[in-house]
Amino acid sequence: MRILILGGDGYLGWPTALRFSARGHEVSVVDNFSRRRWHNEQGTDSLTPIGDLDARIAAWREVSGKEIRSFVGSVEDGEFLDGVVADTMPEAIVHYGEQPSAPYSMLSRERAVETQYTNVIGNLNLLFSMRDHVPEAHLVKLGTMGEYGQPNIDIEEGYIEIEHKGRKDTLPFPKLPGSLYHCSKVHDSTNIHFACRTWGLRATDLNQGVVYGIETDETVQDERLLTRFDYDELFGTVLNRFCVQAVIGHPLTVYGSGGQTRGFLNIRDTLQCVELAVSNPAATGEMRVYNQFTEQFSVLELAELVKQAAEHLGYSVSIDHVENPRVEKEEHYYNAIHTKLLDLGLEPTLLGEELVESIVHAIERYKGRVVETAIEPRTRWNPAKSPA
Amino acid sequence: MRILILGGDGYLGWPTALRFSARGHEVSVVDNFSRRRWHNEQGTDSLTPIGDLDARIAAWREVSGKEIRSFVGSVEDGEFLDGVVADTMPEAIVHYGEQPSAPYSMLSRERAVETQYTNVIGNLNLLFSMRDHVPEAHLVKLGTMGEYGQPNIDIEEGYIEIEHKGRKDTLPFPKLPGSLYHCSKVHDSTNIHFACRTWGLRATDLNQGVVYGIETDETVQDERLLTRFDYDELFGTVLNRFCVQAVIGHPLTVYGSGGQTRGFLNIRDTLQCVELAVSNPAATGEMRVYNQFTEQFSVLELAELVKQAAEHLGYSVSIDHVENPRVEKEEHYYNAIHTKLLDLGLEPTLLGEELVESIVHAIERYKGRVVETAIEPRTRWNPAKSPA
Repeated sequence: MRILILGGDGYLGWPTALRFSARGHEVSVVDNFSRRRWHNEQGTDSLTPIGDLDARIAAWREVSGKEIRSFVGSVEDGEFLDGVVADTMPEAIVHYGEQPSAPYSMLSRERAVETQYTNVIGNLNLLFSMRDHVPEAHLVKLGTMGEYGQPNIDIEEGYIEIEHKGRKDTLPFPKLPGSLYHCSKVHDSTNIHFACRTWGLRATDLNQGVVYGIETDETVQDERLLTRFDYDELFGTVLNRFCVQAVIGHPLTVYGSGGQTRGFLNIRDTLQCVELAVSNPAATGEMRVYNQFTEQFSVLELAELVKQAAEHLGYSVSIDHVENPRVEKEEHYYNAIHTKLLDLGLEPTLLGEELVESIVHAIERYKGRVVETAIEPRTRWNPAKSPA
Repeated sequence: MRILILGGDGYLGWPTALRFSARGHEVSVVDNFSRRRWHNEQGTDSLTPIGDLDARIAAWREVSGKEIRSFVGSVEDGEFLDGVVADTMPEAIVHYGEQPSAPYSMLSRERAVETQYTNVIGNLNLLFSMRDHVPEAHLVKLGTMGEYGQPNIDIEEGYIEIEHKGRKDTLPFPKLPGSLYHCSKVHDSTNIHFACRTWGLRATDLNQGVVYGIETDETVQDERLLTRFDYDELFGTVLNRFCVQAVIGHPLTVYGSGGQTRGFLNIRDTLQCVELAVSNPAATGEMRVYNQFTEQFSVLELAELVKQAAEHLGYSVSIDHVENPRVEKEEHYYNAIHTKLLDLGLEPTLLGEELVESIVHAIERYKGRVVETAIEPRTRWNPAKSPA
């Protein structure tokens, strides 16, 4: 199958490209290296040392004998993207090519605008290119569970049947996004839904939980194939950051009480889910939504799990409740349905001590690269609210 | 009160500025004249001859003795807008400064991107400026009833209580926007809601129906105070277009069966509603939503009303069912609640033959200015769907 991956130089995009290439698909990737640029600007970097895209593609060619095509440019540049789609004529497009950080989107007006511009306009450009060149292709779009927020009812997969004053309809699940980044993902979903209804496009919106993990079957084949791994306050995700903190002897930074509950999944399961979505495309005119995570945890539960696992490896670990820089509920109801990917055959990689230990071991190899000053949260959701 | 009006050169923005100025408020307006530019590009123009903003403000000064400040620039330019907000320190901001046409947003990728960029980024810039300079100010934002689409349940005012699997929450009403313009308004609502929840801003989102009418108490005082009046396929709204068609002997162009039902209101009621919203601000941290229309009609009902009224004035009028250029339901359930503005004291100007006749008379004065070729719908929602 011809598969186009937007954001193919990223944490998930690169291993996804390797996976589809390993399976024998014809893979092309698009990236503008903005993630690398953002890190440069912040004085941070991936924990894992990663080569540039050309070097990684060359390494993959050497290891696997397979070719990945690359296109360097921005999805915000509609003519560029249109040219790539017309050139590659993909049957499936996996769209990771967005600014993925909630705190980054809350840094300033300029960063918020950059986030919504990159994400919303990039995705809108893509929808037009699909309409005009590959209307039968299947869009697999990375969304986020954070689009839903924390409603006081069960979170369904994208849609909810509402009975109201004696009438019924199945409508998009209401959204309570928790940052301007999360808002941008809600905007994307709204635009994609419109394009499916109006142009008959087919799409799967993967509302993904928080991803953790560092290795996939392909990236472990050669150090040059490693994917990036972020642990800093802007681009790191919570479990990855806790593991880095444990290794370098930094207290685990739980924001507030730590009662915030979210869905989580292993990076290996991200690849499984995306493969399942691509292999089982949505129908013409359908925007299908899958809640893509395998387990729910509170942030404090995760901290305790990491503490316990790392202590078994001989580390001394403390947990620090820092003032929550975000405006969010710390105690709330949370029950998100996530059966559709299981129905397609997803076999979850469940989180346990052993898995945390394997992440810790992978981190140990690169602990000398940690920029410790980049870990503490500094980006406040509401700068007017003075610290407690 | 210090009131800042974004889009103050427009169809609704200009009469709103006059109204608040007439009431003794300190009014400033912002515009970049993009509506005039878009018309230039399309070879169309306002039916009413309107002077440039400076000339209109000078005329108002002459007629009323009152001053309106003006700032020429784009809301997309965050630094410009920030400077205006810091300079004027408004207590209320009425935001009409967006690309307001559904067909325009469906013309091409470039126009769609322009629409979402102008609307979403402009509004986002405004939210930051409010946060940083006037966090207590009240944002009165023009949204649209088209955000909701045509669900099979009653449309509530912005939020709906959902009971689901034994639990309850009141959540944003699910949206089914019908064009990329309507999508942009949904995005705005999502961003505003976030800003209210996170920064404690106060906002009223006015989900307005289709506006008709040409005159307000202030614009009739002097011909130089007239507001613009559009009837073309891009910027005209349906009732205004029907009235123009009746006057120039063009068949009334009903799209498809004409069973599409929408909420409508008179331009005089728009001013009433905005005044009511400004005089009764939302609470800190609240995004209040009002459904701003006074009556529901199907498009065919409107055509028949215009035909009847114009025939009484001696016109010969036919109704033409043209192929629907939009992708939309032509027969559907529609019942939208709209009690909150009535509760605040809105006194509706109801549509009847007499009112249509008065619009027709106003149009007659300028019938020589009609560009007849701009009336037929050419902008197809789905260009791949060949005409029947």
